[in-house]
Amino acid sequence: MRQSKMLVPTLKENPSDADIASHQLLVRAGYIRQLASGIYTLLPLGKRVLSKIEKVIREEMDRSGAQEMLLSALQPAELWQESGRWYTYGPELMRMNDRHNREFALGATHEEAMTSIIRDEIGSYKKLPMTLYQIQNKFRDEKRPRFGLLRGREFLMKDAYSFNESYESLDESYQMMFDAYCRIFERLGLNYRAVIADSGAMGGKETHEFMVLSDVGEDVIAYSDTSKYAANVEMAPVVQTYEKSAETPLEKEKVATPDQKTMQEVADYLDHGLDQGLKSIMFEVDDKYVLVVTRGDHEVNDVKVKNLYDAKVVELASEEDTKRLMGAGFGSLGPIDAPEEVEVVADHAVEAMVNITCGANDEGFHYKNVTPGNDFAPDRYADMRFIEEGDPSPDGKGIIQFARGIEVGHVFKLGSFYAENMGATFLDNSGKSQTMVMGSYGIGVSRTLAAMVEQFHDDQGIVWPNQVAPYQVHVLSLNPKKEEQRVLADKIYADLLAEGLEVLYDDRPERAGVKFADSDLIGIPVRIIVGKKAGEEIVEMKRRDSDSKEELSYDSVVEEIKNQLA
Amino acid sequence: MRQSKMLVPTLKENPSDADIASHQLLVRAGYIRQLASGIYTLLPLGKRVLSKIEKVIREEMDRSGAQEMLLSALQPAELWQESGRWYTYGPELMRMNDRHNREFALGATHEEAMTSIIRDEIGSYKKLPMTLYQIQNKFRDEKRPRFGLLRGREFLMKDAYSFNESYESLDESYQMMFDAYCRIFERLGLNYRAVIADSGAMGGKETHEFMVLSDVGEDVIAYSDTSKYAANVEMAPVVQTYEKSAETPLEKEKVATPDQKTMQEVADYLDHGLDQGLKSIMFEVDDKYVLVVTRGDHEVNDVKVKNLYDAKVVELASEEDTKRLMGAGFGSLGPIDAPEEVEVVADHAVEAMVNITCGANDEGFHYKNVTPGNDFAPDRYADMRFIEEGDPSPDGKGIIQFARGIEVGHVFKLGSFYAENMGATFLDNSGKSQTMVMGSYGIGVSRTLAAMVEQFHDDQGIVWPNQVAPYQVHVLSLNPKKEEQRVLADKIYADLLAEGLEVLYDDRPERAGVKFADSDLIGIPVRIIVGKKAGEEIVEMKRRDSDSKEELSYDSVVEEIKNQLA
Repeated sequence: MRQSKMLVPTLKENPSDADIASHQLLVRAGYIRQLASGIYTLLPLGKRVLSKIEKVIREEMDRSGAQEMLLSALQPAELWQESGRWYTYGPELMRMNDRHNREFALGATHEEAMTSIIRDEIGSYKKLPMTLYQIQNKFRDEKRPRFGLLRGREFLMKDAYSFNESYESLDESYQMMFDAYCRIFERLGLNYRAVIADSGAMGGKETHEFMVLSDVGEDVIAYSDTSKYAANVEMAPVVQTYEKSAETPLEKEKVATPDQKTMQEVADYLDHGLDQGLKSIMFEVDDKYVLVVTRGDHEVNDVKVKNLYDAKVVELASEEDTKRLMGAGFGSLGPIDAPEEVEVVADHAVEAMVNITCGANDEGFHYKNVTPGNDFAPDRYADMRFIEEGDPSPDGKGIIQFARGIEVGHVFKLGSFYAENMGATFLDNSGKSQTMVMGSYGIGVSRTLAAMVEQFHDDQGIVWPNQVAPYQVHVLSLNPKKEEQRVLADKIYADLLAEGLEVLYDDRPERAGVKFADSDLIGIPVRIIVGKKAGEEIVEMKRRDSDSKEELSYDSVVEEIKNQLA
Repeated sequence: MRQSKMLVPTLKENPSDADIASHQLLVRAGYIRQLASGIYTLLPLGKRVLSKIEKVIREEMDRSGAQEMLLSALQPAELWQESGRWYTYGPELMRMNDRHNREFALGATHEEAMTSIIRDEIGSYKKLPMTLYQIQNKFRDEKRPRFGLLRGREFLMKDAYSFNESYESLDESYQMMFDAYCRIFERLGLNYRAVIADSGAMGGKETHEFMVLSDVGEDVIAYSDTSKYAANVEMAPVVQTYEKSAETPLEKEKVATPDQKTMQEVADYLDHGLDQGLKSIMFEVDDKYVLVVTRGDHEVNDVKVKNLYDAKVVELASEEDTKRLMGAGFGSLGPIDAPEEVEVVADHAVEAMVNITCGANDEGFHYKNVTPGNDFAPDRYADMRFIEEGDPSPDGKGIIQFARGIEVGHVFKLGSFYAENMGATFLDNSGKSQTMVMGSYGIGVSRTLAAMVEQFHDDQGIVWPNQVAPYQVHVLSLNPKKEEQRVLADKIYADLLAEGLEVLYDDRPERAGVKFADSDLIGIPVRIIVGKKAGEEIVEMKRRDSDSKEELSYDSVVEEIKNQLA
């Protein structure tokens, strides 16, 4: 394509509303424009990259045996009422009325629509398992759309749904999708982790998020420095490697700690380390109260509280409650003499401690020389803390590191939530009616595009890998007013097209500096520069991902470019 | 794909709401399902065909130099207010509010969104002309959605927009799109006509509709039996071939025609043919009154009235108005002694008539032996009637025939309506600010799919041409319980896949009759039947578009199928 005729509106300055590289560069390099808050137009360059990402996804989905469909964005409210999500989804679900005043949702996901089809069309175990997918626009009315394509209100998604006759079968479908996702993100060249995630409130069991590592990610993940292990930081179990302290337990002693409010203040006041104190936090877990105690330098993990009690809701207890039940406010809580209606659960690390400090449940007082087991016995010990960098990896391989991640994919064992609510049943091989089991599997396609820019850019612009670059070769004629430059560039452009290569040809009457800057912004892998030596039929070749340039004679251009792209 | 594992829910009976073949067959053969009125899910087979149609469209759009983009469905109301369509589009435009109560439209088309981008990004004649397109879902809240994919509320469309510096440039862009559309519909194998159409109220000048000939079409087109000429029936000019009657004009005579209300009744009463009478119809044309007279056997064409006066609104005058102005009701109107405030325009055919009958503007009376020119002189003669079958073709080649058509494409010279309302200007080569000129070009992608079924089906089901068939080969194993049939069919299936062919493999444990019926319904071009002679490695081959069958030995299957598909 001749750049002079293409819609590639590059900008010199970063747009004022763009805080992260992908948002800045996609706008500046002419890939996207915002139409309204969180709503973007893919310009020709952006659409080309998006289509290439789609193609990779489609190929791997097809290879996995999933069947492509195309569902509508408009979905009758009745479907969402059947699943219950009409009432629980909140304002993120975009709703509207048609001319007959019937209510519709714009699909945020398609569990309901897909389940209704399968419920109506599939009645026998013989047709199961079946995995169906589509690549289609989704609508979510985000409260604060931001980061360009990373969090928009209308965005392209690949969503897939498996329908299974059993949980064992779901395990298999899940694994097939998991493997397909790995192939997809590997083919895209992304540095990603498949991360064990929280299955949340959907009733599902197992779930992985596919995270592209990036400092702008909204989630923190804990991963092993040597294995594939990765988990959302709140999901990683802590390996128990504590050894009981050899110290001789002393008599516990109540001491005044006037005006010492934080753990750190108390430790300093009593002149010991944070790890010699006990952190005590009270939670309201559904309808009971739980006092969680950890070592002072550890953080209580509320997801672990929730999972330990298989609870629906976990909240910090109010200070009013702690005073009423424990006799003290937040700063002076401790496990000693906790009342019966408060369950005490201690992290495994606590069991190894001797002669430590804890709150005395008396405003302004602490106990010192407390030894768990001697001075109090928790109702149970469990893994209650957040994993930390430097902890051993839960898979036994390597050491935990932290990184931020952008969620680009999600595989999820839904279980029978939708099938039950919507009556999706089948006859098993003994003729008995059973409820289907489902999985759902999503990839944010436009988000993946943005995530790729986060991983593939430098200070000058985007640095696309070949497999998704909008074009493979960027031909620059530095001064097309000079006959010999124009003629040679035209010839090379035609040659490369004839070879079936995708070529962007900067034939614009712009200064060389503008062309170089735009070319760096746009980020096409290989660049051919037709300049002063055009009369000798000599051009320069430069890869976008390297600083070195190479002179080539016209005759060798096609072959050399093929080498570079191979 | 193994049919046993594929979502192909075939039905024996036509769905009760389906009146036309494409709707019936696409549902029965398992290509589509309705989710809500006018809203359809493309099942795997349907999506495969849709993708192939998309691919043809995309290739030809790219070849024409158009650039693909992807716009959003959600569009802020402000854009539609700028163009004015927010107020004029009516209830077909789907509207909604977001969580901040801002108004949005769901894109019915994308003139506004596209114009806003070009307005913001293109400022110089150097970038023009530019044609941009997308393939994307459109939303129109049809009052009566019907005919399955032919008239839905959410549907896939290819829409393109050209931005031009002049009307001459628009002519070129228009022609490029016109040619691309011809290539698309030819590649799809459709029997279509590019039909001259009414440019309607949009201020545009030239427009063609691409019509697939079909009895279920909603429009009537007039086309030449020997040339490419075709027009919407109201748009076709009538070639003037009338010769003045040689009869000697007689004295006009006023006669009573009591209770004779219609043209036919008056003609019978006065004992002459319909073509010896004059039809007189009064219109309100913007703010003036026009009496249109045609030969009694001709139909007045109100689009020609509108175009003759370049009018915004043309309506039949009320009987009250005709009585007040002409002194008589509808049945007795005539051009003789029409008052000055009523303009009389006569069709060219009238000028050739002698001694004819017309209303006397006196209830229950007609004149006979009237001769135009002698007894009245119309303000002007013009082409005022509908073309008829048997008329000469306006291009001078052949005779006009009528057919019904399904509109699958539309090319339209928009002019500067949007650019003016939205301020899309550019600097011309003398540095002067000019308003852009635009064209818009649409193809109903999902509608084209349905139109193809209308042209490619028989009583048993769909008969796909190779280029869009969901699969190229349908392998049927008639009794997979028999080891030798299953093994041979498996082998053939694997062989064909290895050759890169698209194969649907009916491996279901169903009766042979069910398999044949489903295969006819689905309509894959070539069928391989593995049956009783499987032990001898002999199979049958049958084309879907022919009744003859052929026995093949296993060895020759791959080659023979390649021949069939070549």
